[in-house]
Amino acid sequence: MDHKTTLQEAFNETSVQLAGHGKRDAGVLKKAFVDIEDTLSSDMYGEGKVISDFEAEMAEVLGKETAVFFPSGTMAQQIALRIWCDRKELKTVAYHPLSHLEIHEQDGLKELHHIRTVLLADKDRLITLDDVKNMETNIACLLLELPQREIGGQLPEYDELEAISAYCRKQGIILHLDGARLFEVLPYYGKTAAEVCSLFDSVYISVYKGIGGIAGAVLAGSRDFTAESKIWKRRHGGDLISLYPYIIPARHYFRQRVDKMGQYYEEAMELAVLFNSCAKVSTLPEVPVSNMFHVRFALPAEAVEPLLIKLYEETGVGLTGRLKNTGDQSCSFELSTGDLYGSIPKDKVKAAFALLDKLMQEAQH
Amino acid sequence: MDHKTTLQEAFNETSVQLAGHGKRDAGVLKKAFVDIEDTLSSDMYGEGKVISDFEAEMAEVLGKETAVFFPSGTMAQQIALRIWCDRKELKTVAYHPLSHLEIHEQDGLKELHHIRTVLLADKDRLITLDDVKNMETNIACLLLELPQREIGGQLPEYDELEAISAYCRKQGIILHLDGARLFEVLPYYGKTAAEVCSLFDSVYISVYKGIGGIAGAVLAGSRDFTAESKIWKRRHGGDLISLYPYIIPARHYFRQRVDKMGQYYEEAMELAVLFNSCAKVSTLPEVPVSNMFHVRFALPAEAVEPLLIKLYEETGVGLTGRLKNTGDQSCSFELSTGDLYGSIPKDKVKAAFALLDKLMQEAQH
Repeated sequence: MDHKTTLQEAFNETSVQLAGHGKRDAGVLKKAFVDIEDTLSSDMYGEGKVISDFEAEMAEVLGKETAVFFPSGTMAQQIALRIWCDRKELKTVAYHPLSHLEIHEQDGLKELHHIRTVLLADKDRLITLDDVKNMETNIACLLLELPQREIGGQLPEYDELEAISAYCRKQGIILHLDGARLFEVLPYYGKTAAEVCSLFDSVYISVYKGIGGIAGAVLAGSRDFTAESKIWKRRHGGDLISLYPYIIPARHYFRQRVDKMGQYYEEAMELAVLFNSCAKVSTLPEVPVSNMFHVRFALPAEAVEPLLIKLYEETGVGLTGRLKNTGDQSCSFELSTGDLYGSIPKDKVKAAFALLDKLMQEAQH
Repeated sequence: MDHKTTLQEAFNETSVQLAGHGKRDAGVLKKAFVDIEDTLSSDMYGEGKVISDFEAEMAEVLGKETAVFFPSGTMAQQIALRIWCDRKELKTVAYHPLSHLEIHEQDGLKELHHIRTVLLADKDRLITLDDVKNMETNIACLLLELPQREIGGQLPEYDELEAISAYCRKQGIILHLDGARLFEVLPYYGKTAAEVCSLFDSVYISVYKGIGGIAGAVLAGSRDFTAESKIWKRRHGGDLISLYPYIIPARHYFRQRVDKMGQYYEEAMELAVLFNSCAKVSTLPEVPVSNMFHVRFALPAEAVEPLLIKLYEETGVGLTGRLKNTGDQSCSFELSTGDLYGSIPKDKVKAAFALLDKLMQEAQH
C-alpha cells in the first residue's frame, strides 16, 4: 500500500508555481465568457461577426491582408506549407530538425500532404543564413520558428533574420513563420509583430501559449493565400460549425496579456539568473530572449526528482511536474513565465532558490 | 434607401420557430457550463478525465469497445475510411452520391487521402442491398448514412439494413455508419443505438444535430481501430490541447435530449401532416422516419419567399430562413424538430398553417 510521491503529485500540491498563467481548467473558459451576452451569435462555418472581427483584428496586428482562425497550429501550418508547395509545383520544404512538424505531428505533413522535408542546421543550434545558402536541395518554402522552442527558445539576431528573408526573396523561396510564441519575442527584438511578420510571406500564431487562451491558431497572409487556406481547413475537418468557444477566450486573453510580454521577458531573465546561481544548475539560453528557457541539471532525473519533491514540500514553490533526461548525467525542463511568477512574494522565491542551491550542492554526482 | 426585407431577416424577427432547439448563441455554451466548477481540469491532448469519461460513456451507448472525441465529423469519417482502406490495402470506398463526404468537404477524402469513391444508387433514393450486390468495383468499405439527410432523412427498413450488413460481412466489406443523426432514427427503428451499431464495424455520431451541442463528433469501434484513429487525429490537426469546450456541452445536451428523440419524431410526423394539408406543399418523406424531413413547394423560391415573409409578419411563426430552388417550378427547405416546436401554442401553429394554405392556394403557378 506504500505510495512514493511522484514529482507531478508533489508539484500539484505546491501553493505557488514559477511558470505559466495558472492551471488549465474550466475557469479559464468561464472567466472569458463572464461578460459575454447569451445572445451573442455563434460563428457558422467560418462566417459571422465573432470570427471575422477577430480575424480582422489579428490581420491588423500581424500586418497582413487577411487572417483565418484555425482549431490548431498543426492544421494551420501543414496547410500553409501545402499551399506554397502547390504554387511552386515543388513538394519540398525546409525547417529545423526539432520543428513541431517534425517531432510532434505524427508526420501529418508527409502522410497527408506527401511533402518532403529538408532538416536544416544541427538539432542543438539555430538555422543560420549560411545553412540556407548552402542548401543543396530546391525547396518551395522555408519555415522558421521564432523562438526555436526545443532549444530553449533561442532567437537569431534580427539582422540575421532580415538577411535570411532578403536571401529567400531573391531566390524565390517562400518564407513561413512558425510564430507559436511570436508575441513573446517582440520585447527582445524591440519590434512590432507587423514588423517581424513583414519579413515573412505567411505567419502562424498560437492563441494559447503566452496569450493563454484555450486552443486555436491564426494563419495570416495575402487574401488569396488565406482564401485557399479555408478550402484546406474544410478538407482537414477544421471548418467547425462553431469556433467561438476558442475565439472568445483568444480575444479576451490576447487583450489582457499582449502588453505583458515585456514583463514576462524580464521575469524570465530574473529567474534565469536565480537558476544559474545554483550549483549544478544552468539555463539555456543563459540569458533568455523571450519568456522561456530550459533549466538543466547536471544530474539524472532520478537524482533530481527527490530533491525537487523535498523543495516543493518544504517551500511550497513548484518548479515543474516533469523532468526529461537529456543524457546519462543530465536532465532538464522547460519554463515559460506568465502571470503567476509576479504574484509570488520575493522572499518565498529567494528561500526556494537558497534551498535548491543547498540541495544541489549536497547532491552526489 | 429602400430595403426589401429578406426571408432570413423576416425569419429572424419571428417570435417562434417550428424547427430546432433555438438560436446557436453563446447561451448554449454558458448554460452547459453553469454547473461546472472552475477547478475542473482541462483534457490535455486527448487525455484526462473529462474526455476519457465521455468517450467511455459514448462507447457504452454505441456498444463498441472504445470511442474517440473529434472536433468534427468531417475529420472523424475521413480517418475511419483511411484506416479501413489501409487495412484492406485497397483505396476505394462506396457511399451515396449525396454523402457529406462527396458534397460538403471540398473533396478532403480525395485530396488528403487519395481514396477513390464509388457512388452507389441514384441521387434521389436510398442505397439498396441490390446496389451493393451489383457493385462492379472492389471496395474496402461501404459508408451508409442513417438517415440519408439530403433526401429528407429517409431510412432503409431495418431488415434491409441487416441484409446489407450480413452481405458485407460475408464479402469482407467493412461497413461504416455515418450516424450524424443516429439517435434521431432510433424511435422509428425501435432499436437501441448499440443494436443498430452492432451491424457496423465503425460508427460516427455528431454531438450537435439532434443532441444540440456546440460542435464535435465521436468515432467508435474496436480498441485497435480507435487507437489508430488517434494517430490520424493528431496528423489532421484535431488533437487539440483542450477539447472540453465541446465535450462538456456534448455531455450536457446528450443527457438532456437523448430521451426526447421519440417526442421530436412524433412532432415531425405531426408537422408533416400539417404541411401536406396545404396547397402546393408536400414533404419528403411524406411520413417522416426521424425528426427531419424536407418541405417542398410547387413554386420557385422567388414566388414563395414573399408569401413566407407575409406569413412570418402576420403570425410570428417562422418556418425557415432559406429556400433552395430544386427545379424551375419548385423549391424546398430542410426541417428538423427539436425543443422549440413543443413549446408553441397549438392555436398559433394552426393559424400559421391555415394562412400558409390560403397563401399557397392564391399563389400563381
